[in-house]
Amino acid sequence: MPTTPALDAVLAQVDQGLDASLERLFHLLRIRSISTDPAYAEDCRKAADWIAGELNALGFAASARPTPGHPVVVAHGPEQPGPHVLFYAHYDVQPVDPLELWHTDPFDPQIREKDGRKIIVARGASDDKGQMLTFIEACRAWKQATGALPIRISMMLEGEEESGGKNLPPFMRDNAAELKADIALVCDTDMWDRTTPSITTMLRGLVADEIEITAADKDLHSGMFGNAARNPNQVLAEIIASLRAPDGSVTLPGFYEDVAEIPAEVKAQWDGLGFDEAKFLGQVGLSQPAGESKRSVLEMLWARPTCEINGMIGGYTGDGFKTVIPSKARAKISFRLVSGMDPQKIRAAFRAHVEAMLPPDCTVKFTPHGGSPAITVPADGEFLARALQGLSDEWGKPAVITGSGGSIPVAGDFKSILGLDTLLIGFAHVDDQIHSPNEKYDLESFHRGIRSWVRVLAALAA
Amino acid sequence: MPTTPALDAVLAQVDQGLDASLERLFHLLRIRSISTDPAYAEDCRKAADWIAGELNALGFAASARPTPGHPVVVAHGPEQPGPHVLFYAHYDVQPVDPLELWHTDPFDPQIREKDGRKIIVARGASDDKGQMLTFIEACRAWKQATGALPIRISMMLEGEEESGGKNLPPFMRDNAAELKADIALVCDTDMWDRTTPSITTMLRGLVADEIEITAADKDLHSGMFGNAARNPNQVLAEIIASLRAPDGSVTLPGFYEDVAEIPAEVKAQWDGLGFDEAKFLGQVGLSQPAGESKRSVLEMLWARPTCEINGMIGGYTGDGFKTVIPSKARAKISFRLVSGMDPQKIRAAFRAHVEAMLPPDCTVKFTPHGGSPAITVPADGEFLARALQGLSDEWGKPAVITGSGGSIPVAGDFKSILGLDTLLIGFAHVDDQIHSPNEKYDLESFHRGIRSWVRVLAALAA
Repeated sequence: MPTTPALDAVLAQVDQGLDASLERLFHLLRIRSISTDPAYAEDCRKAADWIAGELNALGFAASARPTPGHPVVVAHGPEQPGPHVLFYAHYDVQPVDPLELWHTDPFDPQIREKDGRKIIVARGASDDKGQMLTFIEACRAWKQATGALPIRISMMLEGEEESGGKNLPPFMRDNAAELKADIALVCDTDMWDRTTPSITTMLRGLVADEIEITAADKDLHSGMFGNAARNPNQVLAEIIASLRAPDGSVTLPGFYEDVAEIPAEVKAQWDGLGFDEAKFLGQVGLSQPAGESKRSVLEMLWARPTCEINGMIGGYTGDGFKTVIPSKARAKISFRLVSGMDPQKIRAAFRAHVEAMLPPDCTVKFTPHGGSPAITVPADGEFLARALQGLSDEWGKPAVITGSGGSIPVAGDFKSILGLDTLLIGFAHVDDQIHSPNEKYDLESFHRGIRSWVRVLAALAA
Repeated sequence: MPTTPALDAVLAQVDQGLDASLERLFHLLRIRSISTDPAYAEDCRKAADWIAGELNALGFAASARPTPGHPVVVAHGPEQPGPHVLFYAHYDVQPVDPLELWHTDPFDPQIREKDGRKIIVARGASDDKGQMLTFIEACRAWKQATGALPIRISMMLEGEEESGGKNLPPFMRDNAAELKADIALVCDTDMWDRTTPSITTMLRGLVADEIEITAADKDLHSGMFGNAARNPNQVLAEIIASLRAPDGSVTLPGFYEDVAEIPAEVKAQWDGLGFDEAKFLGQVGLSQPAGESKRSVLEMLWARPTCEINGMIGGYTGDGFKTVIPSKARAKISFRLVSGMDPQKIRAAFRAHVEAMLPPDCTVKFTPHGGSPAITVPADGEFLARALQGLSDEWGKPAVITGSGGSIPVAGDFKSILGLDTLLIGFAHVDDQIHSPNEKYDLESFHRGIRSWVRVLAALAA
């Protein structure tokens, strides 16, 4: 898309203002907004207030709204012709332990060099304060260079994404009328690679369940009872083993019933991404894909559901040995879902399967740990096409459409509560070490992320 | 057997001295001699020193001998005519977790009432401090009432029975000449029922192994990698599930190869014991036997080998949920062996089976936790007959010969290292909750256990 004098001016403003943008980012990174730890509740409030203040200064009507947990910042820009977008990001961060593995103070942001690239090192640099500010600074550049935003923009910036986010859906329901827009924008995802921007249009959903199998009503001595008493470790292992067939598929009845094959054109596009399976697995010390034996890794991650045993425990697990037959054994099991799958139905099928496998004298207790459906953004939408164009213009090569194996529940909430499709656009990289020590955001991600949003907003306005 | 004035005096001494005996038991129960946890090494030493001190005061030449682990108390009574017995028990105890299931502090022994009987509640009350003191207090009563022990008595009291006992066999080999005797006595077993004393002549052996399965070289996010990365929890569960066939038998190749059917006369004797399967299982909240579907419970426990998963752990097992694919998963697995089975052969078969099941990219680390063959004591020995008589005299009904599903490796070592047969005589009950919360020893077990040993020593001296 050809640039306009206005767009050129805004982009120039981004470049000139980069140092000031960084200063604002550093200010936000210094606020210890760890949402999961009640000790940092005041820091979370501080972060929300600071953001609301910045947005008000930019002409938004912004405020930090109370919830039963941390505040949600809601901001509305002036009325404009063209589409109305609702931007989402989160200002809370993960805890920083193990602190001793950080090379610098996680809340004292620094510019460092890594492999010849400049990086911003701090907790939240990438996830999600850095990403959030790419959008806010893009708005600022528009305002400074042209005196106005190019389209109507609202924002909803939450503070509990890293700690379960249970208060956001009720907040959205309570304020659904106010939050109405034409499309949601989320900045919390990766680029495809260092030079290729991407929009994530498929996100897997999640059903998480915990099961506790009880056999005898007390722990038993395996000498005194072994071979005659039911061992819940054995029962649990048999249940877990039964969840996967030898070909790697999940055995729950009806599990794949609502799973569609990906359209040929999407498959062709994914094949064209040049995804290197060996490299992907090699980075974590693996060489061969597990899972469904006839599917590519990318397909398995983006377009196929899975069942994972996230935790299991039973009996004596300390040092040494204890010849016990425990009374109970537990497992935490999750299913990643793809488009079309109903979380309720999968949970019910799982529980029915477990109950059907229970031998005599065994009982099971289920504890649900949340569930959300998968999200697919229609690949033929006008907003998607425009946003892709904006990204392509900035990076000088076509932006790609990708899936993600992870789950971003807010995208599901945008759809179910507000009826909005979501464009997931982000500038993070897989080596950003989010949730880990020494989290970083490439300076290029920040700078060109701002420029990218400037162009995406222009494209959406066009 | 008729009593003698001397025997009567010793039995009277037991009755009069019971409160003092209990005080000594409580002192020992307060020492936290958990052998498997290095944090309690000092407590183990304290227990050994206290016992050695008590035995020295009784005229034994006793000392706590160092080993690479916890000390072994060795004591020798004065030379006497008649047989020379070597008594064995252990002063170490199992860990106490889960602590929250205890109704009282496990190391603050108490006398309580249960179903109209007085019970001593504490970790080790039954296994094996209470049982050990029945013998020591019997020696004390002999000494106090007659000024001497009735036969020559040596003792070997170990502190690593609950944690693999790796240091005892080398200790026995190093001190074989000193430990020579005519027969070994072990107090670590049950009575047949509340009123019927028994001597155990068949003990299962044990092979314990730990396996650690590693897949990726780090923990992974199950959204980013789930379905493509090997999950070691799943691999471990499949290995465990594969160890049992649907009919409850153990699947290892050759597992039953050296297992003989029990002789008809033994089977007849066992049938005559009137063992109540429903009651046995009912006491721990079970109603149907697991294990081999065509065997009786008694046969499964005493004469059939088993495989038990004593512990397993992998991934996130705390509160809440974490969508992790762990790098590693571990299990502690043991096999109970019967006469004829070779521990080495079973361990090798197990490891070969695990290795054969390993999928690509997975490695396994094995950690052995001890192994011992099963033991059978000849049923026609003179010492056995005398000891049975002593027990029958105390309880007023014939003592019975039984098997045991548990393993007492030291009985195998007595045979192989010192050439000694072992008489396993104990006063515990199946509801003692050994290795479990709220372990107890009936006050009657303690009191009449002491009296029983007084009579057994008299019978051996005759």
